[in-house]
Amino acid sequence: MPKVSPRTLSGFMELLPAQQQKMERMMQVLRESYALYGFTPLDTPIIESAEVLLAKGGGETEKQIYRFTKGDSDLALRFDLTVPLAKYVAGHYSELAFPFRRYQIGKVYRGERAQRGRFREFYQADIDVIGDGKLDILNEAEIPAIIYNTFTKLGITRFKIRVNNRKLLNGFYAMNGMSEKAGEIMRTVDKLDKIGAEKVRQLLIDEVKMLPCKAENVLDFMAICGTNAEVIEALERYRGMDPTFDEGLEELIAVTKYLRDFGVPEENFAVDLTIARGLDYYTGTVYETVMTDHPEIGSVCSGGRYDNLAEYYTDKQLPGVGISIGLTRLFYVLNEQGLLSDDLVTAPCDALVLPMTEDMSFAVSAATALRNAGIRTQLYGEKKKFKAKMSYADKIQVPFAVLIGEDEVNEGVLSVKDMQTGEQVKLSPSEAAKHISEKIAALNAGAVIKE
Amino acid sequence: MPKVSPRTLSGFMELLPAQQQKMERMMQVLRESYALYGFTPLDTPIIESAEVLLAKGGGETEKQIYRFTKGDSDLALRFDLTVPLAKYVAGHYSELAFPFRRYQIGKVYRGERAQRGRFREFYQADIDVIGDGKLDILNEAEIPAIIYNTFTKLGITRFKIRVNNRKLLNGFYAMNGMSEKAGEIMRTVDKLDKIGAEKVRQLLIDEVKMLPCKAENVLDFMAICGTNAEVIEALERYRGMDPTFDEGLEELIAVTKYLRDFGVPEENFAVDLTIARGLDYYTGTVYETVMTDHPEIGSVCSGGRYDNLAEYYTDKQLPGVGISIGLTRLFYVLNEQGLLSDDLVTAPCDALVLPMTEDMSFAVSAATALRNAGIRTQLYGEKKKFKAKMSYADKIQVPFAVLIGEDEVNEGVLSVKDMQTGEQVKLSPSEAAKHISEKIAALNAGAVIKE
Repeated sequence: MPKVSPRTLSGFMELLPAQQQKMERMMQVLRESYALYGFTPLDTPIIESAEVLLAKGGGETEKQIYRFTKGDSDLALRFDLTVPLAKYVAGHYSELAFPFRRYQIGKVYRGERAQRGRFREFYQADIDVIGDGKLDILNEAEIPAIIYNTFTKLGITRFKIRVNNRKLLNGFYAMNGMSEKAGEIMRTVDKLDKIGAEKVRQLLIDEVKMLPCKAENVLDFMAICGTNAEVIEALERYRGMDPTFDEGLEELIAVTKYLRDFGVPEENFAVDLTIARGLDYYTGTVYETVMTDHPEIGSVCSGGRYDNLAEYYTDKQLPGVGISIGLTRLFYVLNEQGLLSDDLVTAPCDALVLPMTEDMSFAVSAATALRNAGIRTQLYGEKKKFKAKMSYADKIQVPFAVLIGEDEVNEGVLSVKDMQTGEQVKLSPSEAAKHISEKIAALNAGAVIKE
Repeated sequence: MPKVSPRTLSGFMELLPAQQQKMERMMQVLRESYALYGFTPLDTPIIESAEVLLAKGGGETEKQIYRFTKGDSDLALRFDLTVPLAKYVAGHYSELAFPFRRYQIGKVYRGERAQRGRFREFYQADIDVIGDGKLDILNEAEIPAIIYNTFTKLGITRFKIRVNNRKLLNGFYAMNGMSEKAGEIMRTVDKLDKIGAEKVRQLLIDEVKMLPCKAENVLDFMAICGTNAEVIEALERYRGMDPTFDEGLEELIAVTKYLRDFGVPEENFAVDLTIARGLDYYTGTVYETVMTDHPEIGSVCSGGRYDNLAEYYTDKQLPGVGISIGLTRLFYVLNEQGLLSDDLVTAPCDALVLPMTEDMSFAVSAATALRNAGIRTQLYGEKKKFKAKMSYADKIQVPFAVLIGEDEVNEGVLSVKDMQTGEQVKLSPSEAAKHISEKIAALNAGAVIKE
């Protein structure tokens, strides 16, 4: 029979078992961390009506979208988790309690040009808090606390949450009479990290056509940095010149104050006036998160405050604040950089029971006893030579092999072999369960990411 | 601005938060239960090349499939998890260790006619064990043990795993010279439950054109029931008449013997010679699972042994055994029947911290302390009247409200209100964490399904 090549599409991640285990652990950390902050899990369809999904319309997104017809329905695959959230909240408005806090970890689709590290199917892991009409600033302070907690649990310690406030920026441009050029200025300022202040100054003067003194103002403003107290002190000098700026400053003061109460260390947090995160969607606090030793990865967790989640579906004013982790890309990069810990168990099981006798009844009971003790146990029933069995144990990298021959059956014991140390001990089934459980707990005590 | 109606497509499940929490719990039970038996989690793309997905071709499936082009790629959405598994195992053959045991819980797509309880996007929850060339019978005995364990953990006690063996059937038809009519006979016998033995006998004679004595043979055979020992004793009378039958009998004897060792009670298990599960795919043991008090639901967990998983992709002989739970449909039916427990916490959080003071610093610290103790905590920062806050607490059905007014701040304590009993106590943050944790653990001690 002619065979079809069992290929996977380019741009679609498909992991081998050990890698998949690492991915599952990352997802589990995210689920637990999000739930700890009172976010409820949500699951929405991957397919939506194209009219609903593209209500906002236009832009790069529409070109990348997977859109097709089935029968006479015009359908599309979701390209983010924000539009489905907007649809959900607008559609179920009367059944939800506000603020509505949800997390969603799900696949989204974008038909981007396939290239290394770019995916067409990828997981996003989002949290959002949606208010009904209003939403307190406290929520904007809580977001960095959630990022801090989540990243710490993942095992990352050297990271920085960079925070800005769009009202500060808009107010600053307004007080300088540069509001119309704000977009152009921000795109130029965005190059500070790459080309430095001098070249940005030249671009502002030559291309954005700013007066040198105005360009200087912009660079002075963007250069503000230091501890939270120092940044706020520097920003206080601009107070009273523009109401939007003052509002942004009050918000920033509130956010940094609550951050202390939330227990986020200053070393993981920095006000950074250069970040803007998209021009029209965000309206208040905005966030980016960078891994200190890997700035080349870019922001691994971004988001911000917006005023109107679902304006395409409802007249209800639904402000919110949220962040998103591009999980598939983050996993890919961490993996490439060798930052995913190999200490944690990635085998399909903790213990592999290897019966050496024809009748496997005792081995079955032994496997059942281990499972009843919560140990992930595989029972190997294949009729193979001892060497082949041990080679299988090696290949799946199982921490423990449990050997059961005639002697073990007669004595009612298990020979438990630690596959890492080679040490082998004869134990009763309950002793074996205790022995294995303790070692597995120790192996899994570390974090998913190892800096 | 004209609004787009925020509708969800018909045939696509989208749950409200409390229902989604129940669904998540079911998934969590399945993940843990499958992992306990040494299955590794797998995730494959939802989109595949149409050529790969439809390698087998033909049949009902092809009509229902979501198929579309993107650029010049002919694509399709997976319609089950078995074809992607076959592709995966064939494609990664040299990187996998066999037997390869995987579980996968994922969405699949079938464009069926939409009707109540039928879904176009639905979760399947599958496990499979794939051998390389051979696969021991022990695996076929282990499957009912996994079903038993999984259903018990879900909270279902009144269920029966019905088991048959295709070799017994094929051998029986062969020894009666009825092999060509086997398909027709099985379809007729399938009606036994509905129309009874008399009418089936008439159909076998009138429509399948069997001799009355042969029809009698079939009915006698299908009527075999009783304890495992009784069924095997009855089947022993056919031994020696057909080699395939004898092989099937040996397999059934092995399966029932090991089932005792696996600790599956006889009341949850029955040999049932009338089940066949599809005509060409399964080749050995086959399974169905019915809820004793809800036979109208049909089989909620089915599967069996097959000889050749990936014949469309590879020349390698890859036999396997697996089962599948149609999770979305199961959830839907359990929910309709009111069988999903309301005792477990379905709120987004266990504790809702309600600050009553202007400055929320103490409330923030309190929320952080509760979260550090593992309590899912929401901090409510909105400036609302006390009544509105309590009404929010009621609406999300949170088990505990934590009230923080001037008194609490001054005394450094939390007023913890049990929302079910109305009881309110003042406790230190650490006492509060202990108090809430214990009650939440008790609330969540039960199972997801309540018969």
